[in-house]
Amino acid sequence: MISRLRVLQITEAPRAGDAASRRFGIFILALIAANVLAVILGSVPELEARWEAEFRAFEVFSVAVFSVEYLARVWSCVEDPRYRGAVRGRLRYMLRPLALIDLLAIAPFFVPAAALDLRFLRAMRLFRLVRLLKAGRYVTALGLFRQVIRQKREELVLSLALMAVLLIVSSSVMYIAENGRQPDEFSSIPASMWWAVATLTTVGYGDVIPETPSGRLAAGLISIVGIGLFALPTAILGAGFVEAVQARREPAACPHCGGQLH
Amino acid sequence: MISRLRVLQITEAPRAGDAASRRFGIFILALIAANVLAVILGSVPELEARWEAEFRAFEVFSVAVFSVEYLARVWSCVEDPRYRGAVRGRLRYMLRPLALIDLLAIAPFFVPAAALDLRFLRAMRLFRLVRLLKAGRYVTALGLFRQVIRQKREELVLSLALMAVLLIVSSSVMYIAENGRQPDEFSSIPASMWWAVATLTTVGYGDVIPETPSGRLAAGLISIVGIGLFALPTAILGAGFVEAVQARREPAACPHCGGQLH
Amino acid sequence: MISRLRVLQITEAPRAGDAASRRFGIFILALIAANVLAVILGSVPELEARWEAEFRAFEVFSVAVFSVEYLARVWSCVEDPRYRGAVRGRLRYMLRPLALIDLLAIAPFFVPAAALDLRFLRAMRLFRLVRLLKAGRYVTALGLFRQVIRQKREELVLSLALMAVLLIVSSSVMYIAENGRQPDEFSSIPASMWWAVATLTTVGYGDVIPETPSGRLAAGLISIVGIGLFALPTAILGAGFVEAVQARREPAACPHCGGQLH
Amino acid sequence: MISRLRVLQITEAPRAGDAASRRFGIFILALIAANVLAVILGSVPELEARWEAEFRAFEVFSVAVFSVEYLARVWSCVEDPRYRGAVRGRLRYMLRPLALIDLLAIAPFFVPAAALDLRFLRAMRLFRLVRLLKAGRYVTALGLFRQVIRQKREELVLSLALMAVLLIVSSSVMYIAENGRQPDEFSSIPASMWWAVATLTTVGYGDVIPETPSGRLAAGLISIVGIGLFALPTAILGAGFVEAVQARREPAACPHCGGQLH
Repeated sequence: MISRLRVLQITEAPRAGDAASRRFGIFILALIAANVLAVILGSVPELEARWEAEFRAFEVFSVAVFSVEYLARVWSCVEDPRYRGAVRGRLRYMLRPLALIDLLAIAPFFVPAAALDLRFLRAMRLFRLVRLLKAGRYVTALGLFRQVIRQKREELVLSLALMAVLLIVSSSVMYIAENGRQPDEFSSIPASMWWAVATLTTVGYGDVIPETPSGRLAAGLISIVGIGLFALPTAILGAGFVEAVQARREPAACPHCGGQLH
Repeated sequence: MISRLRVLQITEAPRAGDAASRRFGIFILALIAANVLAVILGSVPELEARWEAEFRAFEVFSVAVFSVEYLARVWSCVEDPRYRGAVRGRLRYMLRPLALIDLLAIAPFFVPAAALDLRFLRAMRLFRLVRLLKAGRYVTALGLFRQVIRQKREELVLSLALMAVLLIVSSSVMYIAENGRQPDEFSSIPASMWWAVATLTTVGYGDVIPETPSGRLAAGLISIVGIGLFALPTAILGAGFVEAVQARREPAACPHCGGQLH
Repeated sequence: MISRLRVLQITEAPRAGDAASRRFGIFILALIAANVLAVILGSVPELEARWEAEFRAFEVFSVAVFSVEYLARVWSCVEDPRYRGAVRGRLRYMLRPLALIDLLAIAPFFVPAAALDLRFLRAMRLFRLVRLLKAGRYVTALGLFRQVIRQKREELVLSLALMAVLLIVSSSVMYIAENGRQPDEFSSIPASMWWAVATLTTVGYGDVIPETPSGRLAAGLISIVGIGLFALPTAILGAGFVEAVQARREPAACPHCGGQLH
Repeated sequence: MISRLRVLQITEAPRAGDAASRRFGIFILALIAANVLAVILGSVPELEARWEAEFRAFEVFSVAVFSVEYLARVWSCVEDPRYRGAVRGRLRYMLRPLALIDLLAIAPFFVPAAALDLRFLRAMRLFRLVRLLKAGRYVTALGLFRQVIRQKREELVLSLALMAVLLIVSSSVMYIAENGRQPDEFSSIPASMWWAVATLTTVGYGDVIPETPSGRLAAGLISIVGIGLFALPTAILGAGFVEAVQARREPAACPHCGGQLH
């Protein structure tokens, strides 16, 4: 018989040397990947029609595994000093973000399909992509990403604010310049924002394009100024990434006393 | 009765510990944001038709608040040693850029609508976006942006000059290559610039496209050289941003010996 | 008579001072470049029709040279201490990636054309582009590229994983938002990925575009977040390149005291 | 009477304190800018038709000034020790790139128009843009740009080589995948390169788009890999720019002896 403490250790993120826990983690990660693939492939009508039974069976199997995993976590969590207490400890554990994600990943399955209209049913199916978030538990590298965003918070917020201002101003300018000529495409400032986003991100679909000379002149100036501004977050994040990984690899030393920094 | 000095302190950018001033600043910023939102939503014909009275009422309220704010600033500015003098001091204050923005943010409201034709009236409404600039008073981070631009002035000016030369040269080349085949799209060098801007910024709407083999060859070479050049300002600004924020955080001190790092 | 050892030296990547080996390398590189050019030009129907005999003759000449080169390498490789042994040594040599590429570069020529249908025949012709890989033997700078990718492996893998997640999530969101309105363009999640790739890379062909308000709102948010994420690998690689080249040039020495810098 | 040495000093790039030379330089630069503007505006048929006489007069005036400038340079160059010798020295001077540009900037004016057909005549007019190059003499910042390119030569050449390989490979792949479905757009590898350039630079006009599933899959992978590679030169140039300007501002010091580096 496997002890409750052992269940906790296995279902937790694996520690060095714990082979059972590592194998369990790899199995769950593989199942998550297979689920994401199933959702993607299941959205193709031909595949869904042809392999309906198989998709269904795999879904039942996945929900069964994830349910057992969830129950095992809730059952064993009281071995963790932070969640002592058969009822209150378990409730506290169940309200943690990671535990809520575990619940969200299985809950939709238990909603009776009869209660849902067709369109909503489809959204429900895609909702299974939430299972992707379960993988966050195992991806330690996400910490690096979070750290970079926290470190560059100031620059990112300022960039985003400037981007918002540029978006509003350029939409308004194009609305004034083009509304008379193209009342449908530039019917309002929010409508003009569709053009502005496509241009400032340099996606440039080409479905909405200024036609008046003043509109084109404004669009040209906005493009040149805008692409610089909209690419700033990338430049900032890129630099942050490189710095963060370097800081991890090379513990810097103080030039005065030789003590380790960071 | 609130003293004139206190009015000056409250309407100025808040200093640490002055709760009334901080609350006043937050209120003005929120009102500016609501105004920008109102201008954006008010440009949607359906919303404007349905909530006309509410938009109007909010505009009257906003102008009233901003007018009181403006008068309070002009009234109290003489407490500032720089603007001594009931008439000349106030005039000097009113000619400062920030005070002129405050005036511009309310002035259009007092222009009689009868004097304006419809198209101009709409532009007038959007002119209320000038109120965005009032927010500049409170956003200290803008100083960082100004500093980066000043620090990288040299590189930015050179990049912009090279971009201008590339824009002129590539427009001319495409004008020669494509004018014979597409006399409307590439009718002149300024007309070809519309293609050049869309290509060099990589927006690529696709409304104007070279069709001759020589035009396509030239367009290919221009794209490859051009995107590098047009993305330079971003690379320069991004590096400047990262440097500037690092310079503000530091000088760091060694936790072991207290010696200054960097 | 030229010795087997000398053949090995000449066919190997040239060492300083070995003029014959250098001349041989340049000749092979030039022949590779001419072959690539021939494949490209030979794909133009008019050129292929007009110069068919010449293209054929050049192909025969190239295969002859590359075959002689391959046989010379296999014959002389036993002089290399690593490949001692007339049969087993030569077999071990022939299984090295570079030797396999050498074989692949000539093998298709010896497949009887009668055994192939037309479409496959054309692919076979383009397969000659594999000869490009032969150039890798001489391009030492490729080592730099490999080194940068190895050094930035961690950041690149994390970026790619985040890009994959964003690609899946944004395709799914657009599938839900647009499938009702455009059932052909957004027929499934894999189909929506075509839109997602075109948007997130900012290519923006404009053949598939969201039309519903919710789809456009989602597309706008996805673009703004996405371009930053999709441009991360470039920022990381660029930084890695600059670092790697600097690290090769240094360690520099102070011109005054001779002390090592950096 | 102004001496030949003084003419040399004035027409050379201005030195600190030489007001006449500085004024001459500014005048020439302004005239160049006006010429570029005239070429651009003169390409607009309506403007050309309306102001034909004025454009012609300005051209005559410009050529007169540039001719006098050229003759003054050739006349006075013998005062420069490098160009001693009335005939051979002047010839050596006239063959310098900058002197050739000066000649090219005026020479087309003296070609009899009767000898040219209309299309060539127009190209001739745009040829006046060569006058832009005359400005290079005065723009010292171009040295910075040249220095960056020289310093990052190695990385740039490697990037360009990888870009060329990717361009060839992706054009070939798309040619195989799409030629059967779209024989006009993907008629050959060179024709497919038009798609490849538009995609890899992320311009994405949208005039040539893969339609087969395998073509779209290949296009997606090519986009994701390609944009990183094609943006590398920008990242490298951007980093080089920042380094070069910093190196100019901050003469680094050796940490061992304190001697000045760079």
